[in-house]
Amino acid sequence: MKAAIVGVTGYTGIELIRLIQQHPYLTLGSIHRSENETVELSDIYPHLSGLNALIETFDAKKIMEKNDLVFFATPAGITKDLVAPFVEKNFLVIDLSGDLRLRKQELYETWYQRPAAEEQILDQAIYALPEFVDKKGNLLSNPGCYATATNLLLAPLVKNQVIDLESIIIDAKSGLSGAGKKLTQSSHYVNVAENMSMYKLNKHQHIPEIVQFLQQWAPNLQHLHFTTSLIPVKRGIFISAYLRLAANQSMEEVKQAYQQAYQDQPFVRMQPVNQLPQLQQVIGSNYCDIGFAYNETTKILTVVAVIDNLIKGASGQAIQNFNLWAGLPQTTGLMQLPIFP
Amino acid sequence: MKAAIVGVTGYTGIELIRLIQQHPYLTLGSIHRSENETVELSDIYPHLSGLNALIETFDAKKIMEKNDLVFFATPAGITKDLVAPFVEKNFLVIDLSGDLRLRKQELYETWYQRPAAEEQILDQAIYALPEFVDKKGNLLSNPGCYATATNLLLAPLVKNQVIDLESIIIDAKSGLSGAGKKLTQSSHYVNVAENMSMYKLNKHQHIPEIVQFLQQWAPNLQHLHFTTSLIPVKRGIFISAYLRLAANQSMEEVKQAYQQAYQDQPFVRMQPVNQLPQLQQVIGSNYCDIGFAYNETTKILTVVAVIDNLIKGASGQAIQNFNLWAGLPQTTGLMQLPIFP
Amino acid sequence: MKAAIVGVTGYTGIELIRLIQQHPYLTLGSIHRSENETVELSDIYPHLSGLNALIETFDAKKIMEKNDLVFFATPAGITKDLVAPFVEKNFLVIDLSGDLRLRKQELYETWYQRPAAEEQILDQAIYALPEFVDKKGNLLSNPGCYATATNLLLAPLVKNQVIDLESIIIDAKSGLSGAGKKLTQSSHYVNVAENMSMYKLNKHQHIPEIVQFLQQWAPNLQHLHFTTSLIPVKRGIFISAYLRLAANQSMEEVKQAYQQAYQDQPFVRMQPVNQLPQLQQVIGSNYCDIGFAYNETTKILTVVAVIDNLIKGASGQAIQNFNLWAGLPQTTGLMQLPIFP
Amino acid sequence: MKAAIVGVTGYTGIELIRLIQQHPYLTLGSIHRSENETVELSDIYPHLSGLNALIETFDAKKIMEKNDLVFFATPAGITKDLVAPFVEKNFLVIDLSGDLRLRKQELYETWYQRPAAEEQILDQAIYALPEFVDKKGNLLSNPGCYATATNLLLAPLVKNQVIDLESIIIDAKSGLSGAGKKLTQSSHYVNVAENMSMYKLNKHQHIPEIVQFLQQWAPNLQHLHFTTSLIPVKRGIFISAYLRLAANQSMEEVKQAYQQAYQDQPFVRMQPVNQLPQLQQVIGSNYCDIGFAYNETTKILTVVAVIDNLIKGASGQAIQNFNLWAGLPQTTGLMQLPIFP
Repeated sequence: MKAAIVGVTGYTGIELIRLIQQHPYLTLGSIHRSENETVELSDIYPHLSGLNALIETFDAKKIMEKNDLVFFATPAGITKDLVAPFVEKNFLVIDLSGDLRLRKQELYETWYQRPAAEEQILDQAIYALPEFVDKKGNLLSNPGCYATATNLLLAPLVKNQVIDLESIIIDAKSGLSGAGKKLTQSSHYVNVAENMSMYKLNKHQHIPEIVQFLQQWAPNLQHLHFTTSLIPVKRGIFISAYLRLAANQSMEEVKQAYQQAYQDQPFVRMQPVNQLPQLQQVIGSNYCDIGFAYNETTKILTVVAVIDNLIKGASGQAIQNFNLWAGLPQTTGLMQLPIFP
Repeated sequence: MKAAIVGVTGYTGIELIRLIQQHPYLTLGSIHRSENETVELSDIYPHLSGLNALIETFDAKKIMEKNDLVFFATPAGITKDLVAPFVEKNFLVIDLSGDLRLRKQELYETWYQRPAAEEQILDQAIYALPEFVDKKGNLLSNPGCYATATNLLLAPLVKNQVIDLESIIIDAKSGLSGAGKKLTQSSHYVNVAENMSMYKLNKHQHIPEIVQFLQQWAPNLQHLHFTTSLIPVKRGIFISAYLRLAANQSMEEVKQAYQQAYQDQPFVRMQPVNQLPQLQQVIGSNYCDIGFAYNETTKILTVVAVIDNLIKGASGQAIQNFNLWAGLPQTTGLMQLPIFP
Repeated sequence: MKAAIVGVTGYTGIELIRLIQQHPYLTLGSIHRSENETVELSDIYPHLSGLNALIETFDAKKIMEKNDLVFFATPAGITKDLVAPFVEKNFLVIDLSGDLRLRKQELYETWYQRPAAEEQILDQAIYALPEFVDKKGNLLSNPGCYATATNLLLAPLVKNQVIDLESIIIDAKSGLSGAGKKLTQSSHYVNVAENMSMYKLNKHQHIPEIVQFLQQWAPNLQHLHFTTSLIPVKRGIFISAYLRLAANQSMEEVKQAYQQAYQDQPFVRMQPVNQLPQLQQVIGSNYCDIGFAYNETTKILTVVAVIDNLIKGASGQAIQNFNLWAGLPQTTGLMQLPIFP
Repeated sequence: MKAAIVGVTGYTGIELIRLIQQHPYLTLGSIHRSENETVELSDIYPHLSGLNALIETFDAKKIMEKNDLVFFATPAGITKDLVAPFVEKNFLVIDLSGDLRLRKQELYETWYQRPAAEEQILDQAIYALPEFVDKKGNLLSNPGCYATATNLLLAPLVKNQVIDLESIIIDAKSGLSGAGKKLTQSSHYVNVAENMSMYKLNKHQHIPEIVQFLQQWAPNLQHLHFTTSLIPVKRGIFISAYLRLAANQSMEEVKQAYQQAYQDQPFVRMQPVNQLPQLQQVIGSNYCDIGFAYNETTKILTVVAVIDNLIKGASGQAIQNFNLWAGLPQTTGLMQLPIFP
């Protein structure tokens, strides 16, 4: 099947190219960006010379003629303007931007600070965290990177009412590729290397996404405390969660909740009890590794989840969603081992 | 005045040398390590060639003859064996190891997993966090790096009963120099760069040190939840604290508590409300920068404190303690600005 | 076909595992190391949990019974002791250690400072730089990482007598994985990050390997000036070469020499004239990218070659050698695009 | 004495502030930049809060009234427009930009690609490499960072005719702070970390500066081969030089040339023969460390020089020039030891 990518010059766009190259049933149909002129992909990314790929301007009709599906790897605010013709034709769209993740327009407008997509489009969009999605459809909204790791960490515990919902504290860290390729002082090498900083405190747009996702099991959940920091790495998300158990719950229930949720899931690797994953053990792969330990003295459960933000947190998960849609095994084309060192 | 350093080849030892060189009233009297042969310092550290300093073997009597004070920059477990002759003569000792920090032997033995110093020595040791110390004496125990930043962050809030003691959650991160120069797989470059990992979960020896320090204002405090992670930087500690306010307390009290504690303290720089410090803004200096913000929705107060672990977290603070002991302004020889970039 | 790996816990060993997983015709038969106890691979490398692979002790007979070929990913000095039974049975061996690269025992003993393999084994070993190998055989010696990049850079110029052989100066840089996982002060994170250092000056064991390889076209070549430096990266080799043209040679001949050598070679990507490759444009791939520019004023030709030391400089090239041996397209299982960012 | 800084928000500007704070005879009089509004320094650099320094607009007359000297830490192209009133009044100017380094206007215009300063200003400017300057004056042009290290490496050898001038090949590497704080794709963290790249090949503006400096001893020298690469560090310059000895010269003459040049120079530390300096052994200090080794086989002399580009390569050297001008010991306020780790 042929896939188009819109917004190919961002980091998730070129990661999609890399993964599609390794997929047995997908080939790259055409690649696009919003600028008006066509340009060689290798002019922007010399590491991709050899592909001889030409970036074309956006043209919905042509894309549908030449492809079987389209990935939107666009920044927030673009998809909502471009997606309508595809939805109309019920053409498979997998959207990696945040535009279709929040079901309510006002929520999007509050957190993204820009106009939301039309309601009828939002109504059709399916929030597609592959380990938990249960609907089928042709408009798939790929979860955000922080939200993917946090949701995988929290969902089994919330679903099984193992934890006190009021107690959730998430200290999330991301590498620089999570912030995209825009040039800002905070992405300049000398401001990143040997540094660490917290940003968007209490304002990160993945907060309502996580809350909305968890509300399917905890309708009363209104918020969680979630902070985001930059660490000096290129790739990777490291989530530390601090949680209190609900009444009458113990480590046994924690263990069972995770086991039940992930024993048949190929991309979530539970660590042995009391062993926490390191960031680098997932980099280069579609894995989410999760470990936990309980402190008998403080009564706090520490849980750590790690992902490669560009793979399980974006492009790998988009391929995983395609696999599910196409009825393929989830792992098709995605079983690359992590890269170490 | 002449200072000796015992344990000069560790990172805090050579940092002491660097700071003593810039101090107007201190000169380096002699330097020592436990090995039996003498050796040129520059054979181990070429960056210190030019000092022409010879590392001598340890000899308490000679050290006291040739010096006015001694810094112990030894690993845990060494000071307790070497310090007795100095204590006997009431010779000024500033100890940077952890051996004299915990007042109770059994606590030390539980957390450090080795025999404790003798009780009469522990009884004389003063836990010397300069911003809060109120005793005088000749046996000063310099706080640990994590403990320094965490204590400075928590003390004003605990002292003024601003926060709910049961709610304290500390997510602490450190660079590699905090782990010392011992060679382990976890300090190999390929295991650190582009990685992050949590270690010693619920077992870090600074936990009882922080609890003991805070008990002066909160005698019922028995524990706090405190995790430690390695981030890929050489220097620096970044503390994220998540706290709930006590009943009837508000941001106003938070602000006042910090203001009262630090308005006359030259090395603690409070950030404007809602502005959090970055790690690099203290590196190379003796500053501890603290910032905080309150989330009205989750009712959680986020506080961030940053220090250079080898300066404010070790050798700079040791000099600061010397200054106080000697009746000098705290800032003597310590006003180097942070290094950026 | 089933492949065994001996020396699986080194960086080239686990890279072989990663690449074999992506190869359509190779599967992992068994993995081995010299220690006496068997152990789970994931106990050493948590990122490889999921493979459920058991590291066995070395047993040549069993290896041959269960596999179709064996990769030696051992440190220097091991292969020569273990390889004899395989050679005897004419079983396919691809050796990634340096033991079989130098044809003359005394040369090996001078540069490696240890006893050489037996002469009859060295006589059968084929130095297998895939772009230039023209022999077939079952004992393949995979080139060294520095040597691979340097040979690919120099071979076309030397073969076509484009450059003055006496002028060759190579300034080579490597990331830390090139030095292996042994723990030394020079691999400790604080000694690598924000540092650069030259090492093994005039003594690197890849010097005679390069000279020996080039002597097939330049029998009088006796030496070249070759320095090696460590740069703070995990993976990658960056070669800067400074060369003078031979009499009557010009940029046209340079261009033709490279074109002729590599126009049909899938893994060497020549850059447009005057454009030099960056290191990261090959990381994660089996590519060697080469660029050059001539300075009319100084009459010096600058050539830069970059490779991923663990792929084209080791395990990827070993697979490429297998592909050639098996009559498969060179690119089989090796077309992964570079990873960026 | 009071010093003004013009162009205070660049990296060399804030490094001047840091060093002036540690100088016993210098205080910061006023700081300036070209923008029209005044602004708090700590708004731009939070690590400098506590200085309470206000950045003022540029006003030559006021600067001279309130200060005893002025440092220009401006980008190329600014000094030449602002410096005239100071030169007219014979007010001490130490210029860190490149505007006054090349004596000939056409040379500047060729290499900097912008209009040069007026001839009468260039005539008065003294190229002030402190170890070799022999003139006095009030218009001092501080050497460039690459040029400082390269000149210190080459000058003794060229002055004493130890090397073959035609053979000089310099492979120079720099950290990111050398490129300034301008935002470009090449300074984005993900394009720097784990990468290395050569840039401005054969076009770096420090080439004519080095040639002009060396011509005082070698009037026929017209060029040298000099390449510049970015390595993933924040600070530091690492120069590798490859040189052939002149006829009848030997290592003895190399050693003597360096000894004679630097035995009384406090900031150049010659390494023992055959020992090469590492980059980090000078970071944080005003030292230039130089080491060399000769290869008997290739007849090439390898010399390595390392500096901290912002200290010996810029602001530290500017202070050193002030010290010399003021008749102070060169080392006044500059004896900070390198920072390690």
